[in-house]
Amino acid sequence: MNLYINLAEQLGARIEQGLYRPGERLPSVRALSLEHGVSLSTVQQAYRQLEDRGLATPRPKSGYFVPLTRAKPALPMVSRAAQRPVDVSQWDQVLELISLSPSRSDMIQLGRGRPDVSSPTLKPLLRSLSRLGRRQDLNSLTYGCIYGDQGLREQISRLLLDSGCQIPYQDIVITTGCHEALSAAIRATCQPGDIVAVDSPSFHGVMQALKGFGMKALELPTDPLTGISLEALELALEQWPIKAIQLTPTCNNPLGYIMPDANKRALLALAQRYDVAIIEDDVYGELAYSYPRPRSIKSYDEDGRVLLCSSFSKTLAPGLRIGWIAPGRYFDRVLHMKYMGTGTTAQLPQLALAEYLEAGHYQPHLRRMRSQYARGLEQMIDWVSRYFPPGTRVSRPQGSFMLWVELDPGFDSQRLNRELQPHKVQIAPGSIFSAAGKYRNCLRINYAAKPSAEIEQAVRRVGESVAELLAELG
Amino acid sequence: MNLYINLAEQLGARIEQGLYRPGERLPSVRALSLEHGVSLSTVQQAYRQLEDRGLATPRPKSGYFVPLTRAKPALPMVSRAAQRPVDVSQWDQVLELISLSPSRSDMIQLGRGRPDVSSPTLKPLLRSLSRLGRRQDLNSLTYGCIYGDQGLREQISRLLLDSGCQIPYQDIVITTGCHEALSAAIRATCQPGDIVAVDSPSFHGVMQALKGFGMKALELPTDPLTGISLEALELALEQWPIKAIQLTPTCNNPLGYIMPDANKRALLALAQRYDVAIIEDDVYGELAYSYPRPRSIKSYDEDGRVLLCSSFSKTLAPGLRIGWIAPGRYFDRVLHMKYMGTGTTAQLPQLALAEYLEAGHYQPHLRRMRSQYARGLEQMIDWVSRYFPPGTRVSRPQGSFMLWVELDPGFDSQRLNRELQPHKVQIAPGSIFSAAGKYRNCLRINYAAKPSAEIEQAVRRVGESVAELLAELG
Repeated sequence: MNLYINLAEQLGARIEQGLYRPGERLPSVRALSLEHGVSLSTVQQAYRQLEDRGLATPRPKSGYFVPLTRAKPALPMVSRAAQRPVDVSQWDQVLELISLSPSRSDMIQLGRGRPDVSSPTLKPLLRSLSRLGRRQDLNSLTYGCIYGDQGLREQISRLLLDSGCQIPYQDIVITTGCHEALSAAIRATCQPGDIVAVDSPSFHGVMQALKGFGMKALELPTDPLTGISLEALELALEQWPIKAIQLTPTCNNPLGYIMPDANKRALLALAQRYDVAIIEDDVYGELAYSYPRPRSIKSYDEDGRVLLCSSFSKTLAPGLRIGWIAPGRYFDRVLHMKYMGTGTTAQLPQLALAEYLEAGHYQPHLRRMRSQYARGLEQMIDWVSRYFPPGTRVSRPQGSFMLWVELDPGFDSQRLNRELQPHKVQIAPGSIFSAAGKYRNCLRINYAAKPSAEIEQAVRRVGESVAELLAELG
Repeated sequence: MNLYINLAEQLGARIEQGLYRPGERLPSVRALSLEHGVSLSTVQQAYRQLEDRGLATPRPKSGYFVPLTRAKPALPMVSRAAQRPVDVSQWDQVLELISLSPSRSDMIQLGRGRPDVSSPTLKPLLRSLSRLGRRQDLNSLTYGCIYGDQGLREQISRLLLDSGCQIPYQDIVITTGCHEALSAAIRATCQPGDIVAVDSPSFHGVMQALKGFGMKALELPTDPLTGISLEALELALEQWPIKAIQLTPTCNNPLGYIMPDANKRALLALAQRYDVAIIEDDVYGELAYSYPRPRSIKSYDEDGRVLLCSSFSKTLAPGLRIGWIAPGRYFDRVLHMKYMGTGTTAQLPQLALAEYLEAGHYQPHLRRMRSQYARGLEQMIDWVSRYFPPGTRVSRPQGSFMLWVELDPGFDSQRLNRELQPHKVQIAPGSIFSAAGKYRNCLRINYAAKPSAEIEQAVRRVGESVAELLAELG
């Protein structure tokens, strides 16, 4: 990619994320040239591109500014989570979301957390899958080793350096998606009846795992830009016998924020002080729009209390079902939990992934997807601004491909989904992201797919249904 | 296959299984001709083949007899299981078995339950995998539907007819191997602290799942030819608050017996009377040497209390990690447990399997593998008779590809494995098949691979090490 396009995208993403307020002066051409080590003309080209996209306005002799007119919808409010542990509910709504077959192409599925899998940068992976699929040998067809394929574990160990982690491959276990990693981590650190502190809203897979294993969720107030409230967490740790903290601090699902490094360190310090485990979901971490990618909490971990869970499901293809866990001091228990859940992990996708990573295809693919998703976000916010009623609030994702939309407190997004059914559109109702079924007035929209007239039409339809339902509320 | 070869194999398998005693008269040529609808000369050809294989001796004017000299090693004794629920142990030994990489070709792995994956009848499956692996579409690369691919579920529904089950596809859930099916079934029917009655010896995966989920195993005495003792089961049901019975009644792992139909029905009646669930592992059911395959307990189930668990791991390839469960009345809970464990199942292998089954490749493959494994059993028993010390007892598998070997009560098969390590041979120590770590004097040997000089050498080595260790015992 050209230098100036790259720079324009980085700057554009920052403006999109609201790091500069409307009317605020943007960094000078000279400052950017120094900061990024590029020529002055490259910066000027980048600014001209941002101008074309309506993200920057030149003022003679003063430099570039954020356009005043480009006022975005307001941010969602800080979640006011219940300050007591609750039993998880909402399985019915989750089931509705995950019962749809991917081949039902008549349905615009804006609800599920699936990435775009149409990029040409996936082709080398498909070639490996195809070639290995033809191979009739023990290595690809029979039971693997319980830890996972060594070649893939070595590649993941290298990959983790980008998030500041030095983890030898021996400390990594391959799992059936991040889902199994999280499930094993929860069972390895908690017993039925135990309390787990979670960010709120939070990934519905974890909510349902807590429900199924008989644990209670303590939902903590969460800021839409900086994440879980440390004050609330400390208070909760003081008040309840919490066993583990489960959160997605980097490119949060569903809010999209990146927890600042200082907060990550402070959270770890709290966990140390109260001696609780941290189950860190980093599944969207590689999809941060800024480069280099943010550090993980695990990267600061000194006593092995952080269980880092991730996968290739969001960055490459969910259908592979390949994730991993770096469980720190809980290694043996996690391995046991993994074995009792599914035995060993499928060999074929592991071998194909190891080849793909080793050949250096992963980073170019990530760069491409990050740009695509950053542009997708811009487009989606534009559509929501245009088609949703005034007063709609939206998140400021700093990575991944999901937008959180907040409506009037009386709004019912489950009813919205029912209204949308005849129109063949599905969104994710906010209530599935809460143990107690809160956030009924919110919804999550996927913007992974390349913008198209079809998707625009679907978003428009959602906006219209939202307006109709709000009108009923009066 | 020629008619006479087919008949010879059926008869041979019956003789091997000890259905006819040494010296007993075999069915007359005329009777067999009528029974199988083949010509008299076909039966005579079959008998001549059995004669060549030393399985039948002609006596002039009297017909064919089982050779007197062909006395097999004695049967293992009926297991004397502890009559109280215990916490499961033995994770360390299981881990040793499952830590080996399949690509470590320098090791003769006689311990793991893996099938032969070198048959040409697998080729159409590999072609499908390869073709679908190349396809860049949502259907193969993204999240599937939580129930599994509908096409595959329909094929499995048809397949289940062979075991006497009429189960619509809507009642079947695809899982990540039979392992996940069993794990979900256990969690769907039991809570931590609950007691599960199991056959003994029993599959180590289930033992470890019970351990991990905090349940207790009540091991029941099990006959090496007819399976779990119904008298002992009734007594146990009377005495303990048992929540579920978990067993492998058809081609049992590790003993290889097929529980008679009458016993299957009687067990179901007991389960009804005491209102407990039955978790039926049928993963080896399609590999019964006799045709048609035996009925499952599930086929008699009227009130949905049987959770039938199975997979393609033993019949096709473990590396696919595709299994299924027909959970009866526990459907909703099982689905929830499956979701919280791994989310949806990988799409690619499901689509390839659906194609393979639909094209009619599965049954010819099964026929081939059944014959191969029946011949493999004959060879393995021959080797064990030849290379193991006198007094060695062996099971009479009626299907699958695993032999159970019982030695002197003081024998230590874990130590045997350590002795075998420098010789690059591994067996499965008997203790992992018991919750309480019994059966240290037993071992399980895999005979799936086609007999070779290398495997003969390995079995011989095991026999020699056994003799050495027994000599130490004095």
